[in-house]
Amino acid sequence: MKSEYTIALDAMGGDFGPEVVLPASINFLKNHKGVRLVLVGLEDELRDRLQKLGASEGDNLQVHHASQVVEMDEPPSKALRGKKDSSIRVSINLVKDGIADACVSAGNTGALMATGRFVLKTLAGIDRPAIISALPTIEGHTHVLDLGANIDSTSEHLFQFAVMGSVLSSAIDNIESPRVGLLNIGEEETKGNDTVKVAAQLLSESELNYIGFVEGDDIFKGGADVVVCDGFVGNVALKASEGLAKMVSYYMKEEFNRNILTRFVGMLTLPVLKAFREKIDPRQYNGASLAGLRGIVIKSHGGADILAFENAINIALIEARKAVTEKISNHLESLLIKRQQD
Amino acid sequence: MKSEYTIALDAMGGDFGPEVVLPASINFLKNHKGVRLVLVGLEDELRDRLQKLGASEGDNLQVHHASQVVEMDEPPSKALRGKKDSSIRVSINLVKDGIADACVSAGNTGALMATGRFVLKTLAGIDRPAIISALPTIEGHTHVLDLGANIDSTSEHLFQFAVMGSVLSSAIDNIESPRVGLLNIGEEETKGNDTVKVAAQLLSESELNYIGFVEGDDIFKGGADVVVCDGFVGNVALKASEGLAKMVSYYMKEEFNRNILTRFVGMLTLPVLKAFREKIDPRQYNGASLAGLRGIVIKSHGGADILAFENAINIALIEARKAVTEKISNHLESLLIKRQQD
Repeated sequence: MKSEYTIALDAMGGDFGPEVVLPASINFLKNHKGVRLVLVGLEDELRDRLQKLGASEGDNLQVHHASQVVEMDEPPSKALRGKKDSSIRVSINLVKDGIADACVSAGNTGALMATGRFVLKTLAGIDRPAIISALPTIEGHTHVLDLGANIDSTSEHLFQFAVMGSVLSSAIDNIESPRVGLLNIGEEETKGNDTVKVAAQLLSESELNYIGFVEGDDIFKGGADVVVCDGFVGNVALKASEGLAKMVSYYMKEEFNRNILTRFVGMLTLPVLKAFREKIDPRQYNGASLAGLRGIVIKSHGGADILAFENAINIALIEARKAVTEKISNHLESLLIKRQQD
Repeated sequence: MKSEYTIALDAMGGDFGPEVVLPASINFLKNHKGVRLVLVGLEDELRDRLQKLGASEGDNLQVHHASQVVEMDEPPSKALRGKKDSSIRVSINLVKDGIADACVSAGNTGALMATGRFVLKTLAGIDRPAIISALPTIEGHTHVLDLGANIDSTSEHLFQFAVMGSVLSSAIDNIESPRVGLLNIGEEETKGNDTVKVAAQLLSESELNYIGFVEGDDIFKGGADVVVCDGFVGNVALKASEGLAKMVSYYMKEEFNRNILTRFVGMLTLPVLKAFREKIDPRQYNGASLAGLRGIVIKSHGGADILAFENAINIALIEARKAVTEKISNHLESLLIKRQQD
């Protein structure tokens, strides 16, 4: 069976590199036929590791050499200039050259974004790519952007984020007209800074299904399919929520470990807590898109485990299947033409 | 026994008004001797309600008439101009006139802030008051500001927030040199916008115990006694965390209610969950200070229940006892003199 989709994987990136990427790839291929994964990185090491895992190269699993590795804390500009054969760069090159339909990396976010912009360029009408990810809500999930690629976004940038988020949500969730909310510190029209107010105006006048301002707690409440914000705000909100979740889990463990009785109760509770965790398991939501590039680039969390990385590969596959890049591009074009006519 | 401290309470504000403020006051006085509470609002209604609660006015519980009430969604400027006898305004006047040592309101935040600024004025060296509140962490708690009073804060504003936060933490927590962190989207010096970078510079050069950038997840991790940020960012981060906590609790209840077995396990778990909840009960943290004013003004959550409102009164009492206004003022003065000498 010929592979319908090819996904390049930066096999060296993230806190665990090939230790996570290789097993994740092998697992992924068990459940997905018609997909070819290309492992990009130090070929000898990768082949060695594949062998130890009892796997081998074939039609649907290939190794592609890249001689350099970008460190997690390396300045993006340095990586871009100095490491032209890094696993990040080569993975993105495979997308540019049409060999891969998408790529995934758990590596240095800044370097991935800088390389993506340099190699692939942004779509016409997009000034800055944005990081977008699905987050769980009481209703299901919502797509939030920007999660940290851009600081000091202008109203026009926020508008472009909204377009990208809307198209992405529409393609991935099969919603005709996703509800777009703009993150603010109040729901009244008078609240917020000028940037947000002008963006609200742009969104009201657009063809998007703009539902108005939403507040921080609305992200997880549901109600919006897309939540738009500046990258500084989005990054802090996302990380603060992660921090709170960790604290909650820490205190809960502490209480269940208090004495033999609470430990016993804790054991009884395990199946319930497991079912609960599966619902909001952050690993399920691993895989953020660098939206606005002329190609699909998925960023996995640096600390992703095997299951989490598999999920990031899955997001790459969904976006490739749904041809989100083309859809964003088409939608932007029609919006741009409409604006010029106005 | 003569009352050592007098606290004015806006008895009409919040989602529940006197329904919460009166019982909270009665409970509070049971546990706090030497404190006088002044209930500010529609006197007939308040006296009626006191009677129904089996309480009466006396040395430590008094009613002070205010003929108007600011609605929760009323524009602050309208309240300031049009309602000069509102329960918010009269409560703050009592602080200004030295009759009360502090005031507490669960009412309209914007109106409370605008009235506080207008009546009390800001301390010398403070351009804008900030909303500061303690939040729970794995270590204990941290003070975060600004939580929504200011948008588009400059580096100088962030610096002033840091001074206020440091003094407040020092006074309340009895820490000599509180660790001050600056909220950013990365810990590296190159990360963040110019406002944050310049603020970092100002903080490094100051006498504060500045520990550098912290990220969103560090808020709940502990490590900093004070976390400084712009009000837009702080408000979104706080509300996003609240939203996540609500979602977690929603999904957990759902799992425990799945069937008779999980409900039984849920019952066994109740004491553990109760102990756990007590640790991070948001009601324990109810009561944010409007720092930077020439007087103590505490904002309670609008939806606060009796226990939560009691906590807000307690924060007012602690700040009055610790004379935080004078301490912030003195500290600012010494910093200003030092700056002029530099």
